[in-house]
Amino acid sequence: MPRHPTKADFPVANIRRYLEPGPVVLVTSAWRGKTNIMTMCWHTVMEFTPSLVGCVIAASNYSFELIRASRACVINLPTLALADAVVGIGNCCGREIDKFETFGLTAAPAVAVKAPLIAECHASFECRLADDALVEKYNFFIFEVVRAHVAPSPRHPRTIHYTGDGVFMVAGKTISRRAMFRPEYL
Amino acid sequence: MPRHPTKADFPVANIRRYLEPGPVVLVTSAWRGKTNIMTMCWHTVMEFTPSLVGCVIAASNYSFELIRASRACVINLPTLALADAVVGIGNCCGREIDKFETFGLTAAPAVAVKAPLIAECHASFECRLADDALVEKYNFFIFEVVRAHVAPSPRHPRTIHYTGDGVFMVAGKTISRRAMFRPEYL
Repeated sequence: MPRHPTKADFPVANIRRYLEPGPVVLVTSAWRGKTNIMTMCWHTVMEFTPSLVGCVIAASNYSFELIRASRACVINLPTLALADAVVGIGNCCGREIDKFETFGLTAAPAVAVKAPLIAECHASFECRLADDALVEKYNFFIFEVVRAHVAPSPRHPRTIHYTGDGVFMVAGKTISRRAMFRPEYL
Repeated sequence: MPRHPTKADFPVANIRRYLEPGPVVLVTSAWRGKTNIMTMCWHTVMEFTPSLVGCVIAASNYSFELIRASRACVINLPTLALADAVVGIGNCCGREIDKFETFGLTAAPAVAVKAPLIAECHASFECRLADDALVEKYNFFIFEVVRAHVAPSPRHPRTIHYTGDGVFMVAGKTISRRAMFRPEYL
């Protein structure tokens, strides 16, 4: 298991740096003494301020129940070192097992929500449900990120990105085109 | 400029292979003789069948007008070779210039919509607006992908993924965890 990276408070308006590239994330939830973790890939940034993230959480997931009842979750960012846990978590159900225990992950307390942070992850974003207008029809939740905890280094973690068929793309090198941007678009 | 990869019809239920990893895409639109291209990063797969994609298109974009009026667009997938065009397109406005001409891109006819395909892109997904319930409040469009055109090779193109600040992550190597998946989850 990887170490627990030390995290610092991070501006919630800037979390696009981590979510916009499209990584697989681990979503934690808690309700009446039960906690769960799910692997999630269908998410998008929706606004900087307030910091909004939209995502699909299928109604068949145990996490759907916990998140709908608690109206909160934590979006945690795993890196390549956690790939096996990410796959394992996505292929079992939290109604039957304690995923923290099964996958050797450490629950750490959040500040603003009851759902736990995953200490082994590179970053954790505490979320409150902001809009459930499309939950019935599409299982689509809009969350506001209210606190962000990020390991300052590395600046660009080796996240994993799902392509289906059991295959993940691993984040590669970065390139800058900063000089080509209008300053107001940066 | 890159070559024009030869594309084949691709099952719309499987386009998650290309969009779920979170790449920057180029969205084309057309309305009453005007066409445009925009760079877009805030998107998510929402369903396999029908093949739904949700995305944020800010109301200040010229493309917002064309897409809202035509209720259609094409989502095109550029690779690293098009990085400079992607940035250029994202930093100018289609009200003032013809982006196909300015960036040396080739418009090819779509099958089901009037918006053009970008011949230089690895894949193009023809979309019809499926639900505009959240357009007023969040500029969030839900599209149904009705036709998909994909270059068969390479299977995993070198897409680019925006992290903010003018910096892109380039898609790296792929890893398979297929053996760890429940068959029904593949």
